[in-house]
Amino acid sequence: MQTQVQNELIENAIESGKLLGMLKYLPDGQLTHAPFSMSPYSISASDLQEMTELTSYFSELMIRISQDWAFLEHHLKPISETDPFLKMLLDFRKQEVTQSKQLLIQRNDFFITKDELSNGGQDRIAANETSPDSSLRQVELNTVSASFPFLITQLVRLHQNLYEQKLLEQIIPNNPLNPVVDAFAKAVRDYGSADAVMLMVSQPAESNRFDQLGLEQLLWEEHKIQTVRKSLTEIYENGCLREGHLVLDGKTVAVTYYRAGYTPDDFRTSEAIKGRQMIEASSTVQVPDLPMQLAGMKKIQQVLTRPEILSAFVSPQISKLCLKTFAGMHCLDEIIETPEGELCASEWASMNPDKYVLKPQREGGGNNYFGREIPKKLAKMKQEEQNAYILMEHIQAKTHSAILVVDGQAETMNCVSEIGRYGICFAENGVVQSNRDVGYLVRTKAENVNEGGVCAGFACLNSLTTA
Amino acid sequence: MQTQVQNELIENAIESGKLLGMLKYLPDGQLTHAPFSMSPYSISASDLQEMTELTSYFSELMIRISQDWAFLEHHLKPISETDPFLKMLLDFRKQEVTQSKQLLIQRNDFFITKDELSNGGQDRIAANETSPDSSLRQVELNTVSASFPFLITQLVRLHQNLYEQKLLEQIIPNNPLNPVVDAFAKAVRDYGSADAVMLMVSQPAESNRFDQLGLEQLLWEEHKIQTVRKSLTEIYENGCLREGHLVLDGKTVAVTYYRAGYTPDDFRTSEAIKGRQMIEASSTVQVPDLPMQLAGMKKIQQVLTRPEILSAFVSPQISKLCLKTFAGMHCLDEIIETPEGELCASEWASMNPDKYVLKPQREGGGNNYFGREIPKKLAKMKQEEQNAYILMEHIQAKTHSAILVVDGQAETMNCVSEIGRYGICFAENGVVQSNRDVGYLVRTKAENVNEGGVCAGFACLNSLTTA
Repeated sequence: MQTQVQNELIENAIESGKLLGMLKYLPDGQLTHAPFSMSPYSISASDLQEMTELTSYFSELMIRISQDWAFLEHHLKPISETDPFLKMLLDFRKQEVTQSKQLLIQRNDFFITKDELSNGGQDRIAANETSPDSSLRQVELNTVSASFPFLITQLVRLHQNLYEQKLLEQIIPNNPLNPVVDAFAKAVRDYGSADAVMLMVSQPAESNRFDQLGLEQLLWEEHKIQTVRKSLTEIYENGCLREGHLVLDGKTVAVTYYRAGYTPDDFRTSEAIKGRQMIEASSTVQVPDLPMQLAGMKKIQQVLTRPEILSAFVSPQISKLCLKTFAGMHCLDEIIETPEGELCASEWASMNPDKYVLKPQREGGGNNYFGREIPKKLAKMKQEEQNAYILMEHIQAKTHSAILVVDGQAETMNCVSEIGRYGICFAENGVVQSNRDVGYLVRTKAENVNEGGVCAGFACLNSLTTA
Repeated sequence: MQTQVQNELIENAIESGKLLGMLKYLPDGQLTHAPFSMSPYSISASDLQEMTELTSYFSELMIRISQDWAFLEHHLKPISETDPFLKMLLDFRKQEVTQSKQLLIQRNDFFITKDELSNGGQDRIAANETSPDSSLRQVELNTVSASFPFLITQLVRLHQNLYEQKLLEQIIPNNPLNPVVDAFAKAVRDYGSADAVMLMVSQPAESNRFDQLGLEQLLWEEHKIQTVRKSLTEIYENGCLREGHLVLDGKTVAVTYYRAGYTPDDFRTSEAIKGRQMIEASSTVQVPDLPMQLAGMKKIQQVLTRPEILSAFVSPQISKLCLKTFAGMHCLDEIIETPEGELCASEWASMNPDKYVLKPQREGGGNNYFGREIPKKLAKMKQEEQNAYILMEHIQAKTHSAILVVDGQAETMNCVSEIGRYGICFAENGVVQSNRDVGYLVRTKAENVNEGGVCAGFACLNSLTTA
């Protein structure tokens, strides 16, 4: 239970958060604040440094993979035979290069593992599973729609104000929003068309509208660059190609920023598909372009955990740094070494369901299988479906107590925190021109979403503090 | 009816407004945007210049009156005999001066009259009524709780962004928030105590919370000055006097900013009264101090319309400028010249109810009587009650069409707009040290609040555009 002083502090934080644009709509249309934590996540200096250094390595890795269509096709085409969404994405590819400039805005998400696991004592479940040399475990790398740059910047502003007023511990400064907006502005200017705009490809019903709007607003106020916001269907209906340029509402689209287009739901109409094709046929700078989007898929994440594959793209030194943050990942029919000898990964996972997460290859979230669900799902799965799933080691994240605030209500819960690092990388024809880490995202949620309470199940924005 | 393009524009403006902190709570506790207009109010350059020039004259007038306790007492004491609230305010006065520094943050509100009235053809209802030399008519001068500096600054930011994107006409820049916050910061610094705070005296249930919070936030982010927010009751319960300083939560209160304390509702408990007395006994800089608050009362506004009284405080030249913006004002038993000879003002108003507004002397708003209500109210009024009311000429404001947006719904309505100018004045022992106009407020509302529609009755934030 919170004390009176704590209650007042939380009440004021809620109001300040609303004022700062940390807003969301509830399913019934009511406006409320975005869920947030009042307990900054404590991270060691070494974990933070390791994570930050990895950002540019992973950005460059994605750029390099994006230049290797044969590699992408080799790993993704087999899956596309049973996954029409992936097939559609692969089919979007055009032979001719319409734009040689690339801008990647990615977010690399990690958990920090429990101390006893990372200190060399990890319960190794197979000889080729992840290294104990790092506490970090990569959850996923988001090359498309790396969201929350506005909301996390505002949450950190809120926490910073509280810290400065001695109402919260000292936090680590963070503002990914400005560099992201500056990157878009540079990309628009470099495109070279006067009065060109940024296109934000959006989902028709977007619950994270305010994160996008905060970005649009800063892009206007700082750079006087307008954002046109359209769904893929609207792009087809309102757009056209003019001398190679994508033109919408009479304006040349210099940059197309995808906050949609990564899930089959975004392609329910044939017009949406045609909208995506229209973008692809134009010379607009796509953030990300199709190969970068594909490079961020779980299947690619999985094959990159194989050292011999990863080393084809990065130096041995960087490969080593990346590998030690990878959780074990397998395709279902992979033969893996286990304490009980060589076994098929799906068989082993059925015997040890608590040690794995079964993830569909396609994006969207919320479709993962845990624990007891895994053998059930595997038993029902058709042979040809198997390709579309990945087995990932269930990361044993460090837990901590945190006050979570959801829709005006605060609860102290046992939590886990997922930490993302934002990276911005400019490249041309695959040659990196600038590449840097620009800040963090922390999302804290109840360890056990089934334990009930209003705050369970909500990922709450959070800041970092030094351990 | 709005077109599709207009609907989209309004929808985006609503979302942007929310993001900018233009928020309010509905009576049921739901969060929504503050009502606003999508039709900037068109003002002539000469009206704008006249209004802007008047700000510092009126600020100085208030400072001078605040130094003349005998004058205030002479006019207010008779009313206080039947008005316990006013009596209480007068009784707050202490003989000794605890703080010689004054900071006035005022807002001077005007209507602009219909062209046919201001162009010399005004339907003069009595020989001593207002001059036709100006289109401006002062509604009231707010020396206490001159609100909306944050919300109007954000509304203008919203309109400015729309204008720059060619979605709205050009508007007149406006940012009263920064100068108001800078003034508070200067007052806190000049007070000379390390780590001193600003006290915001607030009403327990405040519907305009976000306007206050925006100010508090900027005061912190720009000047690292903390705001303590308390009701008068809480001030008594938590505060104390220490070596002449007001101390709250262990912090010295350099500046006390009243966003409450101007209505009897704020003094329902004896603790609230004691809280106000505690402030008065301290050396905190009160914004406004008691005499400045009293100088802004309607009774004082009314007596200042008499040239012989006004000229005691300002030069003949300034007196002339002020007088021509005054609407006719009378106390009820005043004998006035009318086309039908000398009559008692209340008698004349009963015969011409559409030409007057009957206003209670005390603040609070929403208690005015119009038209047919006036003779009814006057007939029921006891002799001793009369002192507590003022008759004011019903200002025939220029009407204009405007799109008003209230709780997500837009309507085009015939409207009137009230324009306020914010003034900041520093003085010491009544000697003005700096004095300037710092921006405007426009509130646009349906001309006839009885005509129905969701937007009727709501004062909507608006910007100015040059006619």
